[in-house]
Amino acid sequence: MSGEKRRLRVAAAQLGPVQIKDERASVVRRMVALLEGAARSGCELVVFPELALTTFFPRYYYENLADVDVFFERAMPNETTLPLFDRAKELGVGFYLGYAELADEGNGVKRYNTSILVDRSGHIVGKYRKIHLPGFAEYRPGKLNQLEKRYFEVGNLGFPVWRTMGGVAGMCICNDRRWPETYRVMGLQGVELLLIGYNTASVNHAADEPAHLRMFHNHLTMQAGAYQNGTWVVASAKAGKEDGHGLIGGSCIIAPTGEIVARTYTEEDDLAIADCDLALCDYIKSTVFDFVRHRRIEHYRLITERTAAIAPD
Amino acid sequence: MSGEKRRLRVAAAQLGPVQIKDERASVVRRMVALLEGAARSGCELVVFPELALTTFFPRYYYENLADVDVFFERAMPNETTLPLFDRAKELGVGFYLGYAELADEGNGVKRYNTSILVDRSGHIVGKYRKIHLPGFAEYRPGKLNQLEKRYFEVGNLGFPVWRTMGGVAGMCICNDRRWPETYRVMGLQGVELLLIGYNTASVNHAADEPAHLRMFHNHLTMQAGAYQNGTWVVASAKAGKEDGHGLIGGSCIIAPTGEIVARTYTEEDDLAIADCDLALCDYIKSTVFDFVRHRRIEHYRLITERTAAIAPD
Repeated sequence: MSGEKRRLRVAAAQLGPVQIKDERASVVRRMVALLEGAARSGCELVVFPELALTTFFPRYYYENLADVDVFFERAMPNETTLPLFDRAKELGVGFYLGYAELADEGNGVKRYNTSILVDRSGHIVGKYRKIHLPGFAEYRPGKLNQLEKRYFEVGNLGFPVWRTMGGVAGMCICNDRRWPETYRVMGLQGVELLLIGYNTASVNHAADEPAHLRMFHNHLTMQAGAYQNGTWVVASAKAGKEDGHGLIGGSCIIAPTGEIVARTYTEEDDLAIADCDLALCDYIKSTVFDFVRHRRIEHYRLITERTAAIAPD
Repeated sequence: MSGEKRRLRVAAAQLGPVQIKDERASVVRRMVALLEGAARSGCELVVFPELALTTFFPRYYYENLADVDVFFERAMPNETTLPLFDRAKELGVGFYLGYAELADEGNGVKRYNTSILVDRSGHIVGKYRKIHLPGFAEYRPGKLNQLEKRYFEVGNLGFPVWRTMGGVAGMCICNDRRWPETYRVMGLQGVELLLIGYNTASVNHAADEPAHLRMFHNHLTMQAGAYQNGTWVVASAKAGKEDGHGLIGGSCIIAPTGEIVARTYTEEDDLAIADCDLALCDYIKSTVFDFVRHRRIEHYRLITERTAAIAPD
């Protein structure tokens, strides 16, 4: 293992439920409180959940897309979120923030499920827009709905990484974490610290499956992604009952060995804190997952040639 | 979930150690005994380990490649393995067999780390040659050695699947199971039953790491691969001390939910048996991992464009 010390104290800042009637300002106050708690514990980086500022609105059907815009941000920071940015800069704490983004890129306003990474000096280092949108584009009467494909465009920024906080950081959002491609594309760019926010319903909207699998799959995919790419993973949930709709917690920090080194056990505002030694990535990346010695891309072509599964006749 | 019943009773047939002095005929007798035990329990398919017929010879250094050929098979079946093929056909049990293959493909003799799949009628359905060869091509004096890159060519058959045993079957070998690409290439061909043989040293030859991680990583990668592709995984180890060199066991059968449904706890000849309902694959493949709705290959390009990890400046 590398002798270089590159330790970073990090918090996954889980949010309890956000009800539909809750003002964004009250959520920002809760986030500032979590940030201050993390700073008191010596954290230099705090990861907040996906769509942190509002309830998880894609569970609701709005016939007119304009009616959903109340959940979106037109600028970041903005008047409501500025107290979080200011306090973080004051404390010298970087953060990951997930929010619904209304973007005017010159070809009409687009809606994205977005995260940003802010460094310890208050500079916005990077932005990511969610690529693996789960659920359906169409309303399904009488069923549990998950309408992200209706409300969001597929992210158009790829899976970039940034050199910041003494290492190489990347981001993804919620359902992205289930896909090995997400981790691998960033692993091929040397990611050492992968930040994830999520909202995961306690019940699978699409299938009748045993309830315990929700938490198991949440951790399984992130632990495998961490190990298979030799990266730290810091994952933060929104948890608890939002207007009666349950969300799992299980926010956690995962080592490059795939081991969970800290996690929450509540469904409330909560912190999971760990010292992430970025040098621990090196031994995985230089041995079993030394890509240059072991990967055989000539045999991987289907992964980028074919979207669907096609079984033999 | 699909109403169609496609149950198959399967055994992972773990082998205890094979010492360097052991005759192949004695190993075949042990395999026939395992096969008969599985058949008595109603199994229709038995998975044997990687390089099942001999000790795990890539731990030893042979300066002359010709000296290693004693561990290889020139034909399959051959005189020594025929009793296994005959008994399996008699019992109507299919099997996966891993062995070292000397192949004359018209451009000189090549050495491969190979597996074959034999169906219940005794027909060889398919062959796979290991693609992710671990270890080193060069001898490292005074260190633990793993010389697969010296003794074997990289497999040249890709990751094919076959329609057999009422489903879609695929194969891989040992270190292949750590790589998400292995599962995904077969997942894109609709695999429902992925068969794996392995020999995994109890100590990491390349790094000084805590011993408990060996079994954790073994199961973690296979459980994630099963879930992320909605496939059953049947994995069989060679286990115990081979001339003083420890191999982990942990042979197991994993459901498409990623759950381990049967496993061995010994390091001896042993069976893990489970009923694999291939219809259970369908709900995973049609919901969270419905590739055609969710995969975004335009963002995966690095996976097939780049072998090595390249971090930003």
